[in-house]
Amino acid sequence: MEIKMSAPKGFLFSAVEAAIKKPGRKDLALIYSESKAVISGMFTTNSIKAAPVMIDMKRIKSGIGQAIIVNSGNANACTGKQGIADALEITDMIAKALKLKNSMVYICSTGVIGTTMPMERIRAKIPELLKNLGKSTIDDLANAIMTTDTFPKNITKRIKINGKTITISAVCKGAGMICPNMATMLCFIMTDANIDKSALDKALKSAVQKSFNKITIDGDMSTNDTVLTMANGMAGNSLIKLNSKEFNKFANAVSDITYELSKLIVKDGEGATKIVEIGVINAKSDIDAKRGAFAVANSLLVKTAIYGNDANWGRIMAAIGYSGITIKEEKTDIYLNGLKIVKNGMGTGKDKEANEKLKGKEIKIIVDLKLGNKNAKVLTCDLSEEYVKINAEYRT
Amino acid sequence: MEIKMSAPKGFLFSAVEAAIKKPGRKDLALIYSESKAVISGMFTTNSIKAAPVMIDMKRIKSGIGQAIIVNSGNANACTGKQGIADALEITDMIAKALKLKNSMVYICSTGVIGTTMPMERIRAKIPELLKNLGKSTIDDLANAIMTTDTFPKNITKRIKINGKTITISAVCKGAGMICPNMATMLCFIMTDANIDKSALDKALKSAVQKSFNKITIDGDMSTNDTVLTMANGMAGNSLIKLNSKEFNKFANAVSDITYELSKLIVKDGEGATKIVEIGVINAKSDIDAKRGAFAVANSLLVKTAIYGNDANWGRIMAAIGYSGITIKEEKTDIYLNGLKIVKNGMGTGKDKEANEKLKGKEIKIIVDLKLGNKNAKVLTCDLSEEYVKINAEYRT
Repeated sequence: MEIKMSAPKGFLFSAVEAAIKKPGRKDLALIYSESKAVISGMFTTNSIKAAPVMIDMKRIKSGIGQAIIVNSGNANACTGKQGIADALEITDMIAKALKLKNSMVYICSTGVIGTTMPMERIRAKIPELLKNLGKSTIDDLANAIMTTDTFPKNITKRIKINGKTITISAVCKGAGMICPNMATMLCFIMTDANIDKSALDKALKSAVQKSFNKITIDGDMSTNDTVLTMANGMAGNSLIKLNSKEFNKFANAVSDITYELSKLIVKDGEGATKIVEIGVINAKSDIDAKRGAFAVANSLLVKTAIYGNDANWGRIMAAIGYSGITIKEEKTDIYLNGLKIVKNGMGTGKDKEANEKLKGKEIKIIVDLKLGNKNAKVLTCDLSEEYVKINAEYRT
Repeated sequence: MEIKMSAPKGFLFSAVEAAIKKPGRKDLALIYSESKAVISGMFTTNSIKAAPVMIDMKRIKSGIGQAIIVNSGNANACTGKQGIADALEITDMIAKALKLKNSMVYICSTGVIGTTMPMERIRAKIPELLKNLGKSTIDDLANAIMTTDTFPKNITKRIKINGKTITISAVCKGAGMICPNMATMLCFIMTDANIDKSALDKALKSAVQKSFNKITIDGDMSTNDTVLTMANGMAGNSLIKLNSKEFNKFANAVSDITYELSKLIVKDGEGATKIVEIGVINAKSDIDAKRGAFAVANSLLVKTAIYGNDANWGRIMAAIGYSGITIKEEKTDIYLNGLKIVKNGMGTGKDKEANEKLKGKEIKIIVDLKLGNKNAKVLTCDLSEEYVKINAEYRT
């Protein structure tokens, strides 16, 4: 586990129990920066967007923010005008209490779709949420945003920029509805770095591209996916500008964090027993490599075989075959944790050895197309009866 | 159940136990037409094609055939040159014994990918297979081609054309790896109709388009999908020509049969407890309607919710949202077995009533986009723990 480090300077947290879906757990949280922060965001590409996503997408155009209120238990999606009104009322309450302009407050929700927010319980809890500000930890925040997650996910890293220590902390939630184009998730990245808005945008985009956009649990994409990054400058470093040496250092740190969080999300995929990396290498094009890797990663037959410790590579070949990419069956090789199980389109007869390798918790499958020099990598997990159970009983 | 009717004139069947995957069941079958038959076929669009598929695709160019040998237990896919050699040896043996040109014999295989055919056991059984010709029924044939199917699937229909009785019999297998662009399946349609080759081609294509291409179990597409239709003319009707009144009657009968078989395949989807019809109506375009319907039908979250009797319509909205089609959230209505559960993008508060409806075995979901006049319909099933169990243990 990560050694727990203190949060970035100037960030305060609060998490309380509002019984949004059911009582007995923290489900309403607040992130507050003592000074105005540069903010960048990325949002679900689903045409159906939750009310808070629509509000944040407008507000983020200003490029600044100071607070994020987030709840689990209710997605506030498919809730129409009422959903928008509820979300606005919540941000207004926070803004008023913290003496901020409304537009400085962002809001994120995750949970069940199609139920309006239990506003009475939320209204009643906001005073406690505010009073508690600074008394909760990042761990509390990570816990409060969980839905079917089985463990909280947060990472803190420190880097030096021009002699100043910069802290970057990130929390996220994942678990199900995890799909290309941003896993179904919320992620908040907080840093005390002093950084230019365009530099923060680029660092976030690049990090998400290499991490959250490369994982898939079940191929479903949520209505609520949001990644927000706040940088409040309180570390006192000289401004990090786009494409400088300092920028690269900062961007790499953010990428490392989001990649580690991605791995945690996959590890905690609903019902997952294994983390699986699918690499497609030597494809004719980038798009072929990516599409091939996602086809294998999303194949239920591949995922169930991995769950069953069955190196049924025929299902990998079939998935690559129907992905629509350019392949030559008689050239294709497949490796499982380094063991060559398919050579030139045919089995190498090492299935028993491969089945043994599948008993591990980290599985690495490489499909070598031998047609070009483009590679892609996707993280996923296996598919167990537990996934079905969790999702059949989600609202009960 | 269908009343069992006798097979089309001139068709003989045989099914024997060859212990291809394991002993104790019929797994090798032969279909033989006493006279030359016009033959049409449709094949998997997967780039990875099994050896028998490659052979049939060549042979079918002649437009005629007289025998089909089929086995379950081994797909003869990803078996390279050996796979082709094995398949050719089998068809050669059949051709020689039946005194046919090699090219008159077709071959289909279904089962595990990537294992070469157990040729010694097959060779040893071919004399018995031939000797038994005419002693097996269509039921035996339907049984012999099953893999994870839990019941055999065959339908026989009779129609009158110009005073002559024409019989059409079809058998198929399905169960898993069922996906758009031909379910993972084998299907053999036999008829004694006297029909022109181009008319048979069109009748088959149109029937498949409306049936096997509109079902999905798990989104996976097989390497072996094949539909073959043989028409031997022994009913003695005057030749059915393309686009005649007689053609329409014949084509409708074939479409009815394949649609009924499609429903049987979905009903028997691996681990399925319910048959689910997804309709997307009033879409802006045909492609939108189809893509939307498939997105909902393939969503694991939708399928598990249906399994759990949970009318979690938010997942349907999310799937429509990420399908990439044109939608207006605030216009979208959703019906579940006739009950309006979403109106203008929001829940109607009838979730409890809807949950009750989900306890039935036949579920009909309609998504009304109210944006145009194009409709599409897809058949699928729910997703249960049993699906995972079947596919995790398939090769053990």
